[in-house]
Amino acid sequence: MLNFLNDYNSVAHPKVLSYIQDAAANKYIGYSTDDVCATARETIRGLIGNDNADVHFLTGGTQTNLSALTAFLRPHEAVIAADTAHINVHETGAIEASGHKILSVPSYDGKLMPEAVRGICAVNDNEHTVKPRLVFISQSTEYGTIYSLAELKSLREVCGELGLLLYLDGARLGAALMCAVNDSTIQDIAALTDAFYIGGTKNGLMFGEALVITNPAIATHFRYIIKQRGGLLAKGFLLGLQFEYALSGGLYFDLAKQANLQADKLRDGLTKLGVSFIVNSPTNQIFPILKTNTVAALAKSVLFQVWGKVDETRTAIRFVTTWHTDDREIDELLDKVRSLS
Amino acid sequence: MLNFLNDYNSVAHPKVLSYIQDAAANKYIGYSTDDVCATARETIRGLIGNDNADVHFLTGGTQTNLSALTAFLRPHEAVIAADTAHINVHETGAIEASGHKILSVPSYDGKLMPEAVRGICAVNDNEHTVKPRLVFISQSTEYGTIYSLAELKSLREVCGELGLLLYLDGARLGAALMCAVNDSTIQDIAALTDAFYIGGTKNGLMFGEALVITNPAIATHFRYIIKQRGGLLAKGFLLGLQFEYALSGGLYFDLAKQANLQADKLRDGLTKLGVSFIVNSPTNQIFPILKTNTVAALAKSVLFQVWGKVDETRTAIRFVTTWHTDDREIDELLDKVRSLS
Amino acid sequence: MLNFLNDYNSVAHPKVLSYIQDAAANKYIGYSTDDVCATARETIRGLIGNDNADVHFLTGGTQTNLSALTAFLRPHEAVIAADTAHINVHETGAIEASGHKILSVPSYDGKLMPEAVRGICAVNDNEHTVKPRLVFISQSTEYGTIYSLAELKSLREVCGELGLLLYLDGARLGAALMCAVNDSTIQDIAALTDAFYIGGTKNGLMFGEALVITNPAIATHFRYIIKQRGGLLAKGFLLGLQFEYALSGGLYFDLAKQANLQADKLRDGLTKLGVSFIVNSPTNQIFPILKTNTVAALAKSVLFQVWGKVDETRTAIRFVTTWHTDDREIDELLDKVRSLS
Amino acid sequence: MLNFLNDYNSVAHPKVLSYIQDAAANKYIGYSTDDVCATARETIRGLIGNDNADVHFLTGGTQTNLSALTAFLRPHEAVIAADTAHINVHETGAIEASGHKILSVPSYDGKLMPEAVRGICAVNDNEHTVKPRLVFISQSTEYGTIYSLAELKSLREVCGELGLLLYLDGARLGAALMCAVNDSTIQDIAALTDAFYIGGTKNGLMFGEALVITNPAIATHFRYIIKQRGGLLAKGFLLGLQFEYALSGGLYFDLAKQANLQADKLRDGLTKLGVSFIVNSPTNQIFPILKTNTVAALAKSVLFQVWGKVDETRTAIRFVTTWHTDDREIDELLDKVRSLS
Repeated sequence: MLNFLNDYNSVAHPKVLSYIQDAAANKYIGYSTDDVCATARETIRGLIGNDNADVHFLTGGTQTNLSALTAFLRPHEAVIAADTAHINVHETGAIEASGHKILSVPSYDGKLMPEAVRGICAVNDNEHTVKPRLVFISQSTEYGTIYSLAELKSLREVCGELGLLLYLDGARLGAALMCAVNDSTIQDIAALTDAFYIGGTKNGLMFGEALVITNPAIATHFRYIIKQRGGLLAKGFLLGLQFEYALSGGLYFDLAKQANLQADKLRDGLTKLGVSFIVNSPTNQIFPILKTNTVAALAKSVLFQVWGKVDETRTAIRFVTTWHTDDREIDELLDKVRSLS
Repeated sequence: MLNFLNDYNSVAHPKVLSYIQDAAANKYIGYSTDDVCATARETIRGLIGNDNADVHFLTGGTQTNLSALTAFLRPHEAVIAADTAHINVHETGAIEASGHKILSVPSYDGKLMPEAVRGICAVNDNEHTVKPRLVFISQSTEYGTIYSLAELKSLREVCGELGLLLYLDGARLGAALMCAVNDSTIQDIAALTDAFYIGGTKNGLMFGEALVITNPAIATHFRYIIKQRGGLLAKGFLLGLQFEYALSGGLYFDLAKQANLQADKLRDGLTKLGVSFIVNSPTNQIFPILKTNTVAALAKSVLFQVWGKVDETRTAIRFVTTWHTDDREIDELLDKVRSLS
Repeated sequence: MLNFLNDYNSVAHPKVLSYIQDAAANKYIGYSTDDVCATARETIRGLIGNDNADVHFLTGGTQTNLSALTAFLRPHEAVIAADTAHINVHETGAIEASGHKILSVPSYDGKLMPEAVRGICAVNDNEHTVKPRLVFISQSTEYGTIYSLAELKSLREVCGELGLLLYLDGARLGAALMCAVNDSTIQDIAALTDAFYIGGTKNGLMFGEALVITNPAIATHFRYIIKQRGGLLAKGFLLGLQFEYALSGGLYFDLAKQANLQADKLRDGLTKLGVSFIVNSPTNQIFPILKTNTVAALAKSVLFQVWGKVDETRTAIRFVTTWHTDDREIDELLDKVRSLS
Repeated sequence: MLNFLNDYNSVAHPKVLSYIQDAAANKYIGYSTDDVCATARETIRGLIGNDNADVHFLTGGTQTNLSALTAFLRPHEAVIAADTAHINVHETGAIEASGHKILSVPSYDGKLMPEAVRGICAVNDNEHTVKPRLVFISQSTEYGTIYSLAELKSLREVCGELGLLLYLDGARLGAALMCAVNDSTIQDIAALTDAFYIGGTKNGLMFGEALVITNPAIATHFRYIIKQRGGLLAKGFLLGLQFEYALSGGLYFDLAKQANLQADKLRDGLTKLGVSFIVNSPTNQIFPILKTNTVAALAKSVLFQVWGKVDETRTAIRFVTTWHTDDREIDELLDKVRSLS
């Protein structure tokens, strides 16, 4: 089976694996209190240009999101998110299970707009409603799109106006930063948000996300929360090793670039076949629209996600590429689409 | 100030108060384990025609809703509700604070439609989404409308099909049952739902709601949950006294009828003044549309709730009537509207 | 049956009832935002000598405790309490259901000692343990005993040292303040704690507790929490009416004094019969030790709580007196004990 | 520094790492729905002799415990555990954060006794108390001791009598099963408990715990809970690979045996030096008592955990050995103890 299902379908990039292997003779202290984690934290602080940022390593995205929001919010405080946000639809109610309502608002190509933030705050303004407190965005979004620097700035502005925190889910931050149309840097992300995470799992690491908290007012005692929610990996050094290696030498960005490049090839190929897309996404997730029959036939030899019916005869699907997607796989997929259409 | 703000603006109906007073020399055991509560439970079982129903007394609606849903749902299970549902917008996230997501769907005049239930279940069907488990409706709704018997039956049907519980918030059940267009009985309500509550606070009692659980599979250990969530009134006999008195002699229904009657008068009067309404509600909540200027002027001498802007120049508001609203107050309100329009 | 089971066994003191009755013609706005509640708040602020205290009215003790602790604590923060504390043993895990561990420590006659606070903090000092943050005490305690002013001061001192909040459950604060050996005032209580509540339910009101938050750092947005946890009574004016009446004219203290007086008579009578007690409690709860046979026989005509076996042949029980306990009931009870011993 | 701090101080056993490396060219589907996980589940079912057991893979112990207990318990239900249990003292209140009280009872050498279970149930028997529902034990315990087969059977018996579930935390199950005095098999463990986990993190895997649910009544929808609590690893195949490899060929048991062997050597060496222990633990955790001065001096070149003061001059510490502890390290440690004593 060809696998275009997601970007966490293989063990890890060989160099990452090899770096872990090289550390196998060592002994470390636990729970990310070791020297490797300390170094990785410094590397991240250097990268984002903020010496005081709090950096924590966790093993997955849902875990990171729920730990962060649990730590940052009081019980009556709510999260504002696009209706398409991962936390709103694909984390099994993890945020609500932590006690917080998600105020979901209509999105535009997977993105949350400042006006929607203002609108939802206007109708949630007294003690009979929840109190909006944190804006959640993903970069890239669940639709493969990205926020421009101007859009990030205007979200920051509305958050400032309304006393809201801005949190960015960077499960696919690499893909966003390295895509052709991107105009924001990781320093911008760090400066414009109160907290964000650098996703490793979906970008060539074996696993791991690095949460960066730049607002000291919400950083207190975060390790207690990680431990309490089950996210404090005993062998935290495994996370430190991976982030240190991938971020200090640039591998992290190379892998994201490569994943995007493969998506570009696939997108171009599909476009040439006359395929259209539900959204114009410049990163490693693309959403072609195919005849429903074609989708069914394709599913026999290709793994992908069905996104939803577009009309009576057509269905949107999602193809995801990674650093590990090779040209042959793309060609083979294009051949299949061509022959089945 | 004229008070058309809500239906919980006075102490209690004099007969209810007097009944409480008559009991003041007695001593009771606590926590609704007394004889009066036992009798009140029997009265309710008789009224609904179900000898096996579990009946519990609580002091308020939010408390009742959160206790019930906490007891009925496992952590990953979610509630389906109209976007206008009280639990979705005006209970400060109480359900989410209990850990459960509310899957809100578009409503029609404050009502939840079976198709919306089917639709939301279709897209929440695996372990990355919450598991829809309970349908929440209000009778009358937050827009003063009511479900017809046919509508209740079709909701029951879809719940049966999809393995969902049906829960009915009866904060204003009296008003619904006693309104002119109603075609369902309290026995129907009991037979068609898994649990519902008979609202006392908004219908002439000093306070109190009677939760009725007709589905034995979800009734186990409910008193533990009431106690844990802070709802087990030490002097539970106060609740028993009120429900026993109001339900055994029919006062409960008389008061609801009277509240509706006063709404009818007010609605008729407003209609004669050329006022239109955002919704055609047959119970004790009505939603006239007035010029925004008129609304501002009216607010100086009348208490009511502003519901929202309708357009550039007009605003919808809510007037609520009760058993305690007298004709003079209605006339005075109509005079004011007339003179300010 | 004679009823010495608890201090919430009758409707309310006649004067309180009568004051409510007098308000029955009025209309109020909801949720304790009315003028009566405002006045009651001022009365309480005057009584405690703190013009800036936040005052909130709730309907019961468990509800008050869980709302307060939910509001005051972050998710990883824990409560230190005596092992005998109501929240630790008789509130169905309400605090844990709010997400917080109770670190229970051995008590001395129902009281928590500063050394126990220091000890438990010493072993809970890193992110693998919860973070102790609030000391919970009851005045009078669950054993009818009271903290002296010196004891309260030393608890305050240890809290100051260790960065802990001090919270006092005053379900029976009246009984504590009015008992013969008491040497602290309500002003002392207010000055030495961060928050406490004045219990109405167990001292002659129909129901209600007045939570007083004197530490502004923990007072923010408390009304959201009350609403979210189901404790915001729609007819909040019922609470305002009762507290205003009982506290402004001194009735609250008279009733507590009377309850204690009746306990004194009962205690003296039992002592003359040669009965001993598990604890020397100076308030309206007393804990005699009787032969287990006697206890069983007494239970046929007297309501009381069995506290626990003392040895093979003897059992401790609890008798509670109230403002409503009359001399005849005490004499009758003493007669029964005498004849059954 | 010599490292005797814990059993999760190195990457993984080389053979495990190598097996992961061999899979690096493959592509898998996510979230443990892949074939490797399916095979690993079958291997575990074969090992425990139960074809119907539910098997789930998670990344750490706290995560496993909190997910399991969240899934198995209703909100008012509580856990009974030894006061020394990991969940009671070293998981930052994770169970309480899930809403459940831990009823902790005195332990005997880290073990929970049936009589303590009976005793705590006897005093938690009505709706004002939590409802005891699950007995939590660890094998080996937090004191390195193990339950004998007879002890496990008598716990099972008391659970049967009182309607309780029996859950076993097997973070160090390997060490327990392979220690000299052990008389129970993994099949016994599976048969006597309702759920238990086979710990990988502390026994040579890179990370991972395999939760086995043998009681089908509590197994429903468990994957929803894992996802909601942040424990559903995107690359679940990493867990499947490790468990399949380690359990199918016996490596898991060899590594545990080796860890115990090294502890035996260290224990013998210390005994010869005249050192005594706070507990007679037959597994890879040992608890020597040293002079407090010696402890301080030793800490300069050896990593270990300080357990607590024994008296004015002596302190208990914990040494942990692993498959990766070599003889040279033990000799060096013994030399240091000898020279510092």
